[in-house]
Amino acid sequence: MPAFHDRPRFPRGFRCASRNVGLKPDAKDLTLFVSEVEAAAAAVFTRNHFPGAPIILGRETLKAGRLKAIIANSKVSNVATGSAGVEHARRMAAAAAKELGTAADRVLVSSTGVIGVPLPIEKIERGVVGMSRDLQDDPLVGAEGIMTTDTHPKAYSMSVGDATITWVAKGSGMIEPNMATMLAYIFTDAALEAATLDEMLRQAVARSFNMLSVDTDTSTSDTCAILANGLAGPVDETAFREALLAGCVRMTETLGRDGEGAEHLLRVTVRGALTDHEARRIAKSVLNSPLVKTMVHGADPNVGRLLMAVGKCFECTITPARTDAWINGFQVVRGGERLAFDDAVMRKALGAEVVDLEIALGVGEARAVAYGCDLTKGYVEENASYYSS
Amino acid sequence: MPAFHDRPRFPRGFRCASRNVGLKPDAKDLTLFVSEVEAAAAAVFTRNHFPGAPIILGRETLKAGRLKAIIANSKVSNVATGSAGVEHARRMAAAAAKELGTAADRVLVSSTGVIGVPLPIEKIERGVVGMSRDLQDDPLVGAEGIMTTDTHPKAYSMSVGDATITWVAKGSGMIEPNMATMLAYIFTDAALEAATLDEMLRQAVARSFNMLSVDTDTSTSDTCAILANGLAGPVDETAFREALLAGCVRMTETLGRDGEGAEHLLRVTVRGALTDHEARRIAKSVLNSPLVKTMVHGADPNVGRLLMAVGKCFECTITPARTDAWINGFQVVRGGERLAFDDAVMRKALGAEVVDLEIALGVGEARAVAYGCDLTKGYVEENASYYSS
Repeated sequence: MPAFHDRPRFPRGFRCASRNVGLKPDAKDLTLFVSEVEAAAAAVFTRNHFPGAPIILGRETLKAGRLKAIIANSKVSNVATGSAGVEHARRMAAAAAKELGTAADRVLVSSTGVIGVPLPIEKIERGVVGMSRDLQDDPLVGAEGIMTTDTHPKAYSMSVGDATITWVAKGSGMIEPNMATMLAYIFTDAALEAATLDEMLRQAVARSFNMLSVDTDTSTSDTCAILANGLAGPVDETAFREALLAGCVRMTETLGRDGEGAEHLLRVTVRGALTDHEARRIAKSVLNSPLVKTMVHGADPNVGRLLMAVGKCFECTITPARTDAWINGFQVVRGGERLAFDDAVMRKALGAEVVDLEIALGVGEARAVAYGCDLTKGYVEENASYYSS
Repeated sequence: MPAFHDRPRFPRGFRCASRNVGLKPDAKDLTLFVSEVEAAAAAVFTRNHFPGAPIILGRETLKAGRLKAIIANSKVSNVATGSAGVEHARRMAAAAAKELGTAADRVLVSSTGVIGVPLPIEKIERGVVGMSRDLQDDPLVGAEGIMTTDTHPKAYSMSVGDATITWVAKGSGMIEPNMATMLAYIFTDAALEAATLDEMLRQAVARSFNMLSVDTDTSTSDTCAILANGLAGPVDETAFREALLAGCVRMTETLGRDGEGAEHLLRVTVRGALTDHEARRIAKSVLNSPLVKTMVHGADPNVGRLLMAVGKCFECTITPARTDAWINGFQVVRGGERLAFDDAVMRKALGAEVVDLEIALGVGEARAVAYGCDLTKGYVEENASYYSS
């Protein structure tokens, strides 16, 4: 497995820019990602029944499997805004295309922020003018421009043979993606067809972003797109696939750790399940249990809650006498019975920044890993006033 | 519809007692409910795959459809305790039977509290001796004895013709029952067969306790039992059925309002759904959304979150253009678009103690109501140290 670069960089031909155009008081709120040549592209979008206007437009745009740029704004998500919202998304694509000298149907639009508020499209149209002169090589600049409640910009890169893959993402709350996470963009200079990219992306997303949950709430704006501009030529497909998954998993962990109010990354591994579906279902059940999340938050060794959260998957095959569980390597359940343990040792295990919960069901061979975070007062505080602040 | 009594009272022939037997430092922790004559009985139990020892025993006991008493302890739930736990539950039934002069298989056992800790059975065996002399007419005495994190004892009663129905319950966290809520006991002096009681109970529970969720976590100890001792003779079955549902709904609302850390009762009505299943699914999705719950908590008019929570029910029939929504009577969504509103007015609506969220889907005739509460820092605080405190 190739290693991640110490500092993220773009593949050949990709650049980005971001600036404040007045949607937020001071922070950057508009971002461009651009490939100097047209790229093959694939994307997965939210399955929420109320997709944002950019999602409606993006599904149309991606049909051609070709992209030259992405324009994304934060603060306002352009969701539940009706036909005016879709018109605003089209104007946003057109404004970026004009600035970059390309066609509007080669531009993917993303918006993230409050639902149900009209997009200030004039500010974006005015603000994008001249941004092509700001384009630069640092992916963190773009990562910063798409942040909402994230506490830090998120970007990684890795080499695969002569090619590079770069991940840029944001996401902190309203995160239990189903198809993709809030906004995740992947750039590569490998030469790959759109259909291959699409299949590779779906496979990687199934085992990474789709196993992430901060708060069980599925955003109306989730978008994960990959652009391959081919400037590095062909690549070993197996190595590329492996690297793509590794980077998606790492970004998933980064998003989980930076969940709203989070103080721990929570990783739940279920093995010995009857089917892949049941492994995923049980892993998510444990990950999303407020009582498991608060147990981790307080490093309170109330480990019986693990069994509760496994056992509430009514429709799954679960045999108490075969069920074992571990917390950061310490076995706490054997055959459905809680083992005695030293409270102080368990408190220490639960106090680690990364808490691994492992469940062995002993009824099959399937395995899944889910990613998330603890539940804190910070989450409640942040979300009790998000609209107003 | 008959009215609830101002102060709860028992039907003819029922009494209760509760005391501290040393499981908790000072508070009452052991409770008896007794019928002077054997009663027809029915019960529903948790569907969690790791049922507590009292549930395993209770399923066996209820096969006969006859009960004379209930013994319940708080502080320790006797779950994940293996065959020793089941033996402890049997000893608990036998101890109550001896004290009351009945058979152990006419005693329902309940335990509630921490999972995975051995039940201090000797304290219970010693403590129950002499409790028959404390038996009294006030259901609130029994309600107090079964409390864990509840902030107040919960009991109601109502007359149906010459008969009385009395509800006694507890429950505050680990509450998304599936079959019944944590512990709910219903007593009546109406004469009804066990099979009729069973059918009536299941019907009422489906529309009340099974539509309750404090935190999506399904307890390993949920029990809802009804005892009918017949001392009031036959009763109009339709009136009884109606009263039974009304009392179960009221108790469900009381449990929701007293959810751990809760400051609001949250009621979500979905109408115009395609099927009953979809109506229930969508109502629960909105009720359980952490972002909806924190919006209510902060009275923050971030009403787009309602659409997010409806829309994440991927498998349901939802047509954005037909979707409307109201918050305490104020329409906030029409045809999938958020309406403009006065922030101050909406803040006031969200600030009420009871917050009604209503969703009209416009795709069918099915309707469901779900009950729960807001998500607060109090919930996080309580559950980050429940084991240790």
